[in-house]
Amino acid sequence: MTAERLVVIGGDAAGMSAASQARRLKGPGELEIVAFERGHFSSFSACGIPYWVGGQVAERDELIARTPAEHRARDIDLRMRTEVTEIDLAGGRVRSRELESGRQEWTGYDKLVIATGARPVRPPLPGIDAPGVFGVQTLDDGQALLDALSAAPGRRAVVVGAGYIGVEMAEALLNRGFEVTVVNRGAQPMATLDPDMGALVGAAMDGLGITTVNGTEVTAVLTGADGRARAVLAGDREFPADVVVLGLGVAPGTELARAAGLPLGSSGGLLTDLSMRVRGREEIWAGGDCVEVLDLVSGRERYVPLGTHANKHGQVIGANVGGGYGTFPGVVGTAVSKVCDLEIARTGLREKDAARVGLQFVPVTVESTGRAGYYPGARPMTVKMLAERRTGRLLGVQIVGREGAAKRVDVAAVALTAGMTVEAMTALDLGYAPPFSPVWDPVLIAARKAVAAVRATG
Amino acid sequence: MTAERLVVIGGDAAGMSAASQARRLKGPGELEIVAFERGHFSSFSACGIPYWVGGQVAERDELIARTPAEHRARDIDLRMRTEVTEIDLAGGRVRSRELESGRQEWTGYDKLVIATGARPVRPPLPGIDAPGVFGVQTLDDGQALLDALSAAPGRRAVVVGAGYIGVEMAEALLNRGFEVTVVNRGAQPMATLDPDMGALVGAAMDGLGITTVNGTEVTAVLTGADGRARAVLAGDREFPADVVVLGLGVAPGTELARAAGLPLGSSGGLLTDLSMRVRGREEIWAGGDCVEVLDLVSGRERYVPLGTHANKHGQVIGANVGGGYGTFPGVVGTAVSKVCDLEIARTGLREKDAARVGLQFVPVTVESTGRAGYYPGARPMTVKMLAERRTGRLLGVQIVGREGAAKRVDVAAVALTAGMTVEAMTALDLGYAPPFSPVWDPVLIAARKAVAAVRATG
Repeated sequence: MTAERLVVIGGDAAGMSAASQARRLKGPGELEIVAFERGHFSSFSACGIPYWVGGQVAERDELIARTPAEHRARDIDLRMRTEVTEIDLAGGRVRSRELESGRQEWTGYDKLVIATGARPVRPPLPGIDAPGVFGVQTLDDGQALLDALSAAPGRRAVVVGAGYIGVEMAEALLNRGFEVTVVNRGAQPMATLDPDMGALVGAAMDGLGITTVNGTEVTAVLTGADGRARAVLAGDREFPADVVVLGLGVAPGTELARAAGLPLGSSGGLLTDLSMRVRGREEIWAGGDCVEVLDLVSGRERYVPLGTHANKHGQVIGANVGGGYGTFPGVVGTAVSKVCDLEIARTGLREKDAARVGLQFVPVTVESTGRAGYYPGARPMTVKMLAERRTGRLLGVQIVGREGAAKRVDVAAVALTAGMTVEAMTALDLGYAPPFSPVWDPVLIAARKAVAAVRATG
Repeated sequence: MTAERLVVIGGDAAGMSAASQARRLKGPGELEIVAFERGHFSSFSACGIPYWVGGQVAERDELIARTPAEHRARDIDLRMRTEVTEIDLAGGRVRSRELESGRQEWTGYDKLVIATGARPVRPPLPGIDAPGVFGVQTLDDGQALLDALSAAPGRRAVVVGAGYIGVEMAEALLNRGFEVTVVNRGAQPMATLDPDMGALVGAAMDGLGITTVNGTEVTAVLTGADGRARAVLAGDREFPADVVVLGLGVAPGTELARAAGLPLGSSGGLLTDLSMRVRGREEIWAGGDCVEVLDLVSGRERYVPLGTHANKHGQVIGANVGGGYGTFPGVVGTAVSKVCDLEIARTGLREKDAARVGLQFVPVTVESTGRAGYYPGARPMTVKMLAERRTGRLLGVQIVGREGAAKRVDVAAVALTAGMTVEAMTALDLGYAPPFSPVWDPVLIAARKAVAAVRATG
């Protein structure tokens, strides 16, 4: 029996998890694995880049979970700096190009995993490609930014965008001693939260010494006589910048899949079934930041690029490719972040998400603390909860606060997965001791208020 | 219409929550509320006493959620230092005695709430009532201990018992500069955990400078010529003590209920239905540390004295007494604690609990960290998970570790409530960002290992 060949496009979390899991299930005599990665690094934590730039993580290599050599030692033929330029579905092969030598070749596959990740959103503005403008998607990006921070003529930084990457980079630049201005199109930071909760983040950022400029779209990066970025133009204002960081989020990196005619969703991500098999294709799987996933609360496909999902996808794909079985049922939309000591968390639907799919809801907001009020270090926490009108089904939770705020959202994530009502949530047996929670956990306080609100709404 | 009269026995969490909630629903014209409390304080946090003794909470009054005057201002006739000595079921009345004056009287009720709490376990050992031996159940206990710590002739403290109270008091005494020895009957501290997890707590306590003496039963408190405790005798060893603290847990304070012939469970706690009504009685409710509750995982009644449950019971009772509706479905057995920076958490069944009810199980244990491994401050965490054999249903989780360990157990508490399998748990959408979790949350890592173990066991 000749070994089957698995080809993996993309050497990061989803692709290499899939390859590793498949290898665990099938040895090299049964399954040959060839993986292509166009970058310099495999299996690294993009989510860790802001903390490396900010100085909490000392060395770039700490962000690398597994090096190419480690993958190769496990009989995975990982070809670095080699870009796949075409998928030939009919021929069952991919064309690759070695970036250094320019050498091209075709490689046939029996099974194909597409894990091409995301590309940073980079609007076609004047000056956006000037020296001094940085993305933070790859370790090379991070190194370039770090080098620029050391060499910067002054200490003014402008971050474009106030989503997760934007606020995390604002913290990183603050830690590096920069004066930070965040320019943001929305009316408040964190468009992944409802506006009222985003406004709390904005107020806290101001308190941390970060200047937030909201409701203002960047129209150009202005350059100096040396061609380097010197300011950001937004509305009719110029924001001087010794360094400009783009934090506008990412979009699915599905150019190859699109060119091959594979099915893409409304966000441009690949569409798969629950086994992460690309719809309509027996021999192709896809996972990570290039796919759309089922939102279990709204019942719709969504684009949720996140390392933890990519790793799960990889496990599922590897199990299925390796002759086992696994599914990825979907997400509930959990995301946590922080800016300095402010923790930010969400799960489930925002008000506008619920309205979009025809769900009527009742929103409540409560203030509490992460520890018993009398216990030292008790800090405020705001919990917003959305419940469906009439049924009282939990639809979403957002939390903004200090210590203990972020991971509290996990309780709501599990409750959403289980389809709990807010009434059922009021009886949840959550851990209580004064250093860890008030006698009523903030999530329970919110649930109680939501029960009353659902009843009052009728 | 004459107002009905509600009598509440016990002025702490369950009783006064019930009274307050009933008052919210019915005004004094409809419902008269009389509450009896034999102690000096109402609505205080017994869970907070170790932190007051340890110095983290500066003032006793910070532990009081609502004073007698505040309750009275809400039209609740709260009679302090007044003990109920008899319940006359046939006559629908209770006999009370004012502790200062000795005055006795009968008070009739239309509805009765029994919230008599717990009494500390105090074995009838020689010397146990000597000066220098302290419980930590009431604020008076706490004050007496604090006074004794200041006046102690030396700095040696012996804590008897290594459950929640014992380990929390060990920390408190350490914080006050005492040399602390914990004498414990079990083979390791924290009998509420499986032995392997309890052993981790023991090792950590040793590392913190607390001497733990396990497998040793205290047989006497030895007194000096002045009649004061001077040592604890355990096995054939004497442990010199300038102060002795009893942390042997509590038992239901149901002497009144027993005398009245009300139904008690195997732990001696009152038995209620889901509305917290005492079984077989239309007009009597009970809640807090004097009742047994349904364990949703084992399907058996259990005694779980805990302030957070008492508050929930009070809400439910108050709603029902006030003409509304509420139920307390039961517990899954969640408890969290800490000793210095070591966090300890459990939910669901231990190995022996599962065996006792005939459940076959597969245990797994994993080591992880509370943050991404590369993020500063990432500290180790051990997660033990029990899944039912064949079905893979989650049965219990125990976590011992540093920052972020305790409240992580809430994820398992919700999963237990929802009856999830460990397979379903592997797909949970838990919050991920490097400061808050590895890319696979420790609970997910345990769930993955449990899935494999269930499969391997067959």
